[in-house]
Amino acid sequence: MSADLDMIYDPISLERTILETIPMARAMGLGVVDYDGHRIALSAPLAPNVNDKGCAFGGSLASLMTLAAWGLVNLKLSEAGEQADVYVQDSSISYLNPVWDALTAEAAAEPGQDWAQFIADLRERGKARITMMAEVAVAEGGGVACRMFGKFVAKRSP
Amino acid sequence: MSADLDMIYDPISLERTILETIPMARAMGLGVVDYDGHRIALSAPLAPNVNDKGCAFGGSLASLMTLAAWGLVNLKLSEAGEQADVYVQDSSISYLNPVWDALTAEAAAEPGQDWAQFIADLRERGKARITMMAEVAVAEGGGVACRMFGKFVAKRSP
Repeated sequence: MSADLDMIYDPISLERTILETIPMARAMGLGVVDYDGHRIALSAPLAPNVNDKGCAFGGSLASLMTLAAWGLVNLKLSEAGEQADVYVQDSSISYLNPVWDALTAEAAAEPGQDWAQFIADLRERGKARITMMAEVAVAEGGGVACRMFGKFVAKRSP
Repeated sequence: MSADLDMIYDPISLERTILETIPMARAMGLGVVDYDGHRIALSAPLAPNVNDKGCAFGGSLASLMTLAAWGLVNLKLSEAGEQADVYVQDSSISYLNPVWDALTAEAAAEPGQDWAQFIADLRERGKARITMMAEVAVAEGGGVACRMFGKFVAKRSP
């Protein structure tokens, strides 16, 4: 695969990169469905992502929230003209309600986090951290199914 | 699928139930590789579980650790002659080092947790909680790649 195919510069290339490089994302049927510059939404159909009870598998919910947050960090870097390896350092997830429909995860920086500071840290030190949050809703108006907080690191490629 | 196929009473039926009911576990190539009554090990090959960097995808690591812990709770229930729905309530994961080989997750109850108390709680209240831990090693002697603590709930089926 050429390096160009891995470049993330908008939601479309983000989806392509995820699907081409992460086999589990393909198996999940993942798609990037919305992005407004602050918040991103990824979704996946229920069928390939069920557990033994027929509702959404916790591993699929965790994967979708992690990839939503990871994708948003990559988009913000790209918008700032930066390139870096992005990875999750730690995360905590609360599973509050089962999901019986298609899975949609929305991710944003945790309130109080500052993208400008994140980019400035990366430029100054070659490394930066930001805390992201992501949620999956039960269904329209049905409240939160699960919520993740995760610390993400961006590191300039050597 | 008959109800019998879903019964978990040993590591073999645990693996069969996971693979038959959770499509993502099939896509991961997951297998139950060891169980000694206290500790369970699940593994999966690297190829279907890579990320954009070619090492193990965080979502696969999270899924494998979650299923290892979930599986062990089910086995301990079965050994006590109990049947209950088991689900993860919350979990926190530290990603410490990348995994460049097959993924193996080991799970056990967190030190200080008491299976006898867990079973007694379930019998008395129809519901019980236990904190589990799981780890993926980097490779033999290479230290810890990631570690999960998770609260699991067992609830008698209504």
